[in-house]
Amino acid sequence: MPDAPRPVAPDLAACEADPRIVWNEDVLRFSDTDQNGHVNNATFAVFCESGRVNLLHHRLKPTRPAGSYFVLARVAIDFKAELHYPGRVRIATWIPRIGRTSVAFGQALFGADGRLVATSEAVTVSMDGATRRPLPLSAETRAVIEAVMRPEG
Amino acid sequence: MPDAPRPVAPDLAACEADPRIVWNEDVLRFSDTDQNGHVNNATFAVFCESGRVNLLHHRLKPTRPAGSYFVLARVAIDFKAELHYPGRVRIATWIPRIGRTSVAFGQALFGADGRLVATSEAVTVSMDGATRRPLPLSAETRAVIEAVMRPEG
Amino acid sequence: MPDAPRPVAPDLAACEADPRIVWNEDVLRFSDTDQNGHVNNATFAVFCESGRVNLLHHRLKPTRPAGSYFVLARVAIDFKAELHYPGRVRIATWIPRIGRTSVAFGQALFGADGRLVATSEAVTVSMDGATRRPLPLSAETRAVIEAVMRPEG
Amino acid sequence: MPDAPRPVAPDLAACEADPRIVWNEDVLRFSDTDQNGHVNNATFAVFCESGRVNLLHHRLKPTRPAGSYFVLARVAIDFKAELHYPGRVRIATWIPRIGRTSVAFGQALFGADGRLVATSEAVTVSMDGATRRPLPLSAETRAVIEAVMRPEG
Repeated sequence: MPDAPRPVAPDLAACEADPRIVWNEDVLRFSDTDQNGHVNNATFAVFCESGRVNLLHHRLKPTRPAGSYFVLARVAIDFKAELHYPGRVRIATWIPRIGRTSVAFGQALFGADGRLVATSEAVTVSMDGATRRPLPLSAETRAVIEAVMRPEG
Repeated sequence: MPDAPRPVAPDLAACEADPRIVWNEDVLRFSDTDQNGHVNNATFAVFCESGRVNLLHHRLKPTRPAGSYFVLARVAIDFKAELHYPGRVRIATWIPRIGRTSVAFGQALFGADGRLVATSEAVTVSMDGATRRPLPLSAETRAVIEAVMRPEG
Repeated sequence: MPDAPRPVAPDLAACEADPRIVWNEDVLRFSDTDQNGHVNNATFAVFCESGRVNLLHHRLKPTRPAGSYFVLARVAIDFKAELHYPGRVRIATWIPRIGRTSVAFGQALFGADGRLVATSEAVTVSMDGATRRPLPLSAETRAVIEAVMRPEG
Repeated sequence: MPDAPRPVAPDLAACEADPRIVWNEDVLRFSDTDQNGHVNNATFAVFCESGRVNLLHHRLKPTRPAGSYFVLARVAIDFKAELHYPGRVRIATWIPRIGRTSVAFGQALFGADGRLVATSEAVTVSMDGATRRPLPLSAETRAVIEAVMRPEG
């Protein structure tokens, strides 16, 4: 299917060596499984959200103009392998690019064995709480992001 | 807090004929299942919450003193049968008793085939938002509840 | 962001009039909300799954060769509006195209008020249970799909 | 079934010092929160399940007769404090008593700050997969449990 250029399958060692990547980890829960016997596909969207929120909270939130917030405009997940309970999932999150009002996120999910289980790309948009319209990223936000930007290709 | 005497297994027809019972329905989702092939046990707590919130929202919320709210103190669920996807679950919720600051909830969950799948009892406590301490139920709340109270035993 | 050609924003009336679309409905649950006060973004992936599984179960499952199954390769969701509890979400699911071994799904999610809240596209791949490799779609599957195919653009 | 006497509020240090307790930890997820701004009450049932399944998997599963399994008959949760995202929850699980065919579980949930957030009691029943009727616990299961039993009161 034609789509945006997808990154080459990320390698765990390369991701671990990259200081621009923000990491978090989720613990798999029995209730994450479904009757197919593996972690439910929709739960991968939960893991991706954990990583995005973690990066937003630690890196971008302090740079947001008062009264502004980020909304999720789009998320895409490519499934590479199954996850099975019990276990953990390690989530690598980075920022591949920004627009005038938007911030893109790239992600790679790894099972406890280091195996790549999914990649994801998401786009969030900075919003003005008063007008509820897109708000250009502040210079402070741009500066913080550009210091850790990890372009793809 | 000691459990109230548990009701005898509720009968769907009897519940449907009882005007004191508030009904709501949830649609089972594929992600509700787990690797045991049935709807996950913990998801039953979600269905019970749907019913409690529905009753609180429609019957008790308008009677709450400004700045007060209800907190869940305890929930107990007795599992009677499995639920399988796809399907629906019908939730019968009633108020078996109240205390000075607390409201108890009784519930019965029925599968689409009318089979009893679980019973539940919960206790919520009225809280004062300012002091964050239990708040005696208002006369208005007591009046609304006493009109629909469904004592057990 | 460059991406696959996205369908023009679906219109509820047009979707309802289209016999090629398969409908299902989920009931929003209190636990679907998050601390942002709306239905959590990741829960939209659950609704999309409900619709895909519903279509697969009713239309394609009977046409699958014994021992074969479908796996989700990719899902993308575009968020158009918020969902708030309580309420329902109506899910329109269709098949925009197929490949040699793959079936694409298009979806539109509508709130109880008929407002479009999200669109989604997913790709599933037919797998051979024995070899765990992609399996070309059977002639029977192709025939069933071609009768309801709803190309985009 | 009448509730067992509830333990006095467990103390983290005392639990950590008790070798009869099995520990596991879940990471809070953004999607665990609800519009009340805290981790949703029903999610506590997920954490309790994580602990029960963890203990069953590591201690009891190897002692089960072939073709038998455990089913959850009842779970009760007492809510002591809120959990807020981000954070972790530590789950202490033990076996307070057994019956002829049943195993009870006691649990205490602690926030990352060591604060008790909930206690729980559950009862599971050993089932014969063929007859789907309760199956007396095997001598091997009894021996394993009696070595770690932690009576309450």
